[in-house]
Amino acid sequence: MKIGIAQINSVVGDFPGNAKRLIAAYRECIDQGAELVISPELSLVGYPPRDLVFKSSFVPKCLQALDYLAGEIREIPILVGYVDHHHPRQPGKPFRNAAAWLENGSVRHRIWKTLLPTYDVFDERRYFEPSATCQPIEWNGKRIGITICEDIWTEEYLDRPLYDRDPIKELSEKGIDMILNLSASPFHLGKPQLRRSMIGAVAHKHHIPVVYCNAIGGQDQLIFDGHSLVVGANGRINEQFPGFKEACKVINPFQTKHEEAVLDDCDPSQLYHALVLGLRDYAQKSGFSSACLGLSGGIDSALTAAIAADALGPENIHGLTMPSPYSSRGSVEDSFALAKNLGIRCDEVSIRAPFESIKKTMHSLFEGKPEDVTEENMQARIRGLLLMALSNKDNHLLLTTGNKSELAVGYCTIYGDMCGGLAVISDLPKTRVYEVSRWLNREREIIPWNTIDKAPSAELRPNQKDQDTLPPYDTLDAILELYVEHHLSTDEIIARGSDETIVRWIQRRVDLNEWKRHQAAPGLRVTTKAFGIGRRMPIVQRFSS
Amino acid sequence: MKIGIAQINSVVGDFPGNAKRLIAAYRECIDQGAELVISPELSLVGYPPRDLVFKSSFVPKCLQALDYLAGEIREIPILVGYVDHHHPRQPGKPFRNAAAWLENGSVRHRIWKTLLPTYDVFDERRYFEPSATCQPIEWNGKRIGITICEDIWTEEYLDRPLYDRDPIKELSEKGIDMILNLSASPFHLGKPQLRRSMIGAVAHKHHIPVVYCNAIGGQDQLIFDGHSLVVGANGRINEQFPGFKEACKVINPFQTKHEEAVLDDCDPSQLYHALVLGLRDYAQKSGFSSACLGLSGGIDSALTAAIAADALGPENIHGLTMPSPYSSRGSVEDSFALAKNLGIRCDEVSIRAPFESIKKTMHSLFEGKPEDVTEENMQARIRGLLLMALSNKDNHLLLTTGNKSELAVGYCTIYGDMCGGLAVISDLPKTRVYEVSRWLNREREIIPWNTIDKAPSAELRPNQKDQDTLPPYDTLDAILELYVEHHLSTDEIIARGSDETIVRWIQRRVDLNEWKRHQAAPGLRVTTKAFGIGRRMPIVQRFSS
Repeated sequence: MKIGIAQINSVVGDFPGNAKRLIAAYRECIDQGAELVISPELSLVGYPPRDLVFKSSFVPKCLQALDYLAGEIREIPILVGYVDHHHPRQPGKPFRNAAAWLENGSVRHRIWKTLLPTYDVFDERRYFEPSATCQPIEWNGKRIGITICEDIWTEEYLDRPLYDRDPIKELSEKGIDMILNLSASPFHLGKPQLRRSMIGAVAHKHHIPVVYCNAIGGQDQLIFDGHSLVVGANGRINEQFPGFKEACKVINPFQTKHEEAVLDDCDPSQLYHALVLGLRDYAQKSGFSSACLGLSGGIDSALTAAIAADALGPENIHGLTMPSPYSSRGSVEDSFALAKNLGIRCDEVSIRAPFESIKKTMHSLFEGKPEDVTEENMQARIRGLLLMALSNKDNHLLLTTGNKSELAVGYCTIYGDMCGGLAVISDLPKTRVYEVSRWLNREREIIPWNTIDKAPSAELRPNQKDQDTLPPYDTLDAILELYVEHHLSTDEIIARGSDETIVRWIQRRVDLNEWKRHQAAPGLRVTTKAFGIGRRMPIVQRFSS
Repeated sequence: MKIGIAQINSVVGDFPGNAKRLIAAYRECIDQGAELVISPELSLVGYPPRDLVFKSSFVPKCLQALDYLAGEIREIPILVGYVDHHHPRQPGKPFRNAAAWLENGSVRHRIWKTLLPTYDVFDERRYFEPSATCQPIEWNGKRIGITICEDIWTEEYLDRPLYDRDPIKELSEKGIDMILNLSASPFHLGKPQLRRSMIGAVAHKHHIPVVYCNAIGGQDQLIFDGHSLVVGANGRINEQFPGFKEACKVINPFQTKHEEAVLDDCDPSQLYHALVLGLRDYAQKSGFSSACLGLSGGIDSALTAAIAADALGPENIHGLTMPSPYSSRGSVEDSFALAKNLGIRCDEVSIRAPFESIKKTMHSLFEGKPEDVTEENMQARIRGLLLMALSNKDNHLLLTTGNKSELAVGYCTIYGDMCGGLAVISDLPKTRVYEVSRWLNREREIIPWNTIDKAPSAELRPNQKDQDTLPPYDTLDAILELYVEHHLSTDEIIARGSDETIVRWIQRRVDLNEWKRHQAAPGLRVTTKAFGIGRRMPIVQRFSS
């Protein structure tokens, strides 16, 4: 049995475009000898469509596209993901997260998702009604269990037992020879390994092969990494699809291999390729072919520029270095060195004159009051203003360059360095920014070593260093991981050996800066808990622990 | 039977403060002769706590506070809302939305919410597991059905049949003499009337009285309006609590009245009082005692200033009028007239010099390119920068003044006039801004009539008028209501008689500006569908209809 896996990149809401992508992948798989083709979850729709599904014509147009697509399909079937209606008078949510088995010009089977994730970045119970039953499908003498994403995630791989249903068990009890899974499973560091382990365990437990087809592509904050899999009945990985790119390949799930297919990608490489894909898709899917950004001479803007140059082409990136009275000459030089290494354009404009003009404008109101963080923020906001002007004039996507550590504790200026349509590295803790930058320089200098080696500084007052305000980054990041990603209380973190003053300072800063993050640009998610749609904190609140 | 209704204003996560509020209200009700006291949904926690519940110490501290509170309660019972654990090894979500019956120093009953809204602004299936059964509670010879918020919302009052459970029916079949409901039901225009009708119908259908206790207070984008109710067994409203303020009152639900209690509040009055409460609570609950804002001489900033002066006291409001080369002298004069009427401070600073300085800074990059929207945005962003400087220097909450119509079509500048911690009137369509402003002037001029009567203008280029770019506001608002609030397609809106070109222009503008709204300040919600947490659209998407 030859199954074609179409690891494709759909665009949310683009029914005609997604239908075309599906047909092209279908034909490619047939050319490779496929007898059945599988595509990702909601492949016709893009994942996640979010509240678009409530638009009165969204699901009708989706069903039209499904009919059109079915018309293009001959005797070799394809499984595509789409959104179906739930019965209008039966209680429950209005829609189904569905898969259609298309064959000979029509929809032969409809399968509905049973387990609907409603945690982290997922909101499926907002839209979808779960399937009441799980039924194997007979085809060519085999009984196939068709599942959609979460349906295959077993209890041991979730934070707690979430569901009172187990689709794999239900299917298995009815007798199946194989499991197919249509997924749109977003990336975070460690997720590809986790999926291999989880799907391997499912195959091994039930002694049947599993074909797992995952989406790829960036969608707002989410990055779908592909890494589709075929696991043999012995639980061993027979096929490991590449990450972060489209791929079509035909495999026989019943043909077991001796050697396990490996996932040969280290952490910084995965992070880098995830961010390149996330940025490229954010820009291109929303119609931008170029980007601009501020270059400070620091490591955050340098890494962001490197990712942007890779994603959109160096000729499409415009950097601005905007020295203030407090900037070192080295920062400007480092920016130009970076631009040269990357082959991107860089211009220098001084913010000295606007800064003086703005201070003068506010002079009568501020008379007698000492300079403070107000004047630091002014500089960052003038830079944001200049970058937005460049973005407006030349239709660039402005990239904001802040990292997760500074966004967490609010060591960033709203409407200043936070300006931009996309926050490329806002889910990378500073220590990871260094790690990825060093990895990027593994063969030759891309990010100037001087940028990597010097002490980080915002350069908003004379001789300022990040560590005047912040704890050392390895301390900060370790505490942030416990506080933000694992929701531990300050007492618990202190009990693990961290300094009480530092922990309480970080907790207060993270909580106080919720309002800034509320207005932050969407940031590409690469950890288990990014700021953004997966973390929904109230702004006004008085809990501290 | 005398029941005390404690319509109180809790603060999210403030367990000690909320416990104090509950005790004070409990004592006030006892002083009035209460035999049983009821408080709102999650009254000990504040609603909604959102992802705070995932913090490892949140629910433990909540349960500690509940124990403390129980210790303060003697023979007269009180019902309080709290978050409970779900059993760690039973499948489902980790928590319960719960009510505790406190009596004689301990928790005598625990009731769990059955219907968990997961639509619009609500995310309850993200956190909570529904109750499996609904059990009446016997007390003083009466059988009481205790329900939490959504539990009482009958199918006919929802968009579609959402649930396969009906808690009122389940309780009613077991025999009850009365229904109590603990609610945290947020305001939108028409909601108080809807609740009266819905709760009246429940009481009438089951021939039993209903005591409905709603929360009041602002919480981020949500405004809880109170308007608690007591409905007799005949379905008639016996008691109508006030809106938008705390109130404790003792009533006998079995004593029917001849005359129905009325809700004597017109639309603009409700909108105004909702926004005053929303702004006051946002500021005070997050520690701000003062606010600043830009005064343009236009109606949006004028109404925002009036609401702010009412909410925080005129002596705590600082307005800036910031004329540009394109500002009319009348705009500055209107701003000072407004400030005089309100008794707030107003200062004038010209943006002419910073505007020239910024244009000069970018001159080398923009040479040969004509002035365009870039230079318009520069002016708005300089104003945003000056306002943020004032906010930073004097620790004011900056209020942003945009209305819903302009936010919908993106007729506003990100990092410019969109700067601010709270968007006070961002859910008021422009036509409602006029309506509320006229209502505010019903006895004397508060908003200068000149501001109300002149043609609206952003004054970012010579002789600019809003209607050079936008359709007339009554046309725009009517189409926006159909498109944004009711999710109709352009074809459906055109079929109702609107101009096709205008409808398609609006649709395109609304969709294209999703990215701006993603970075907007939280806006106080007063319609059925505000931009913000109740409307979750992808930024990158290609659906248009």
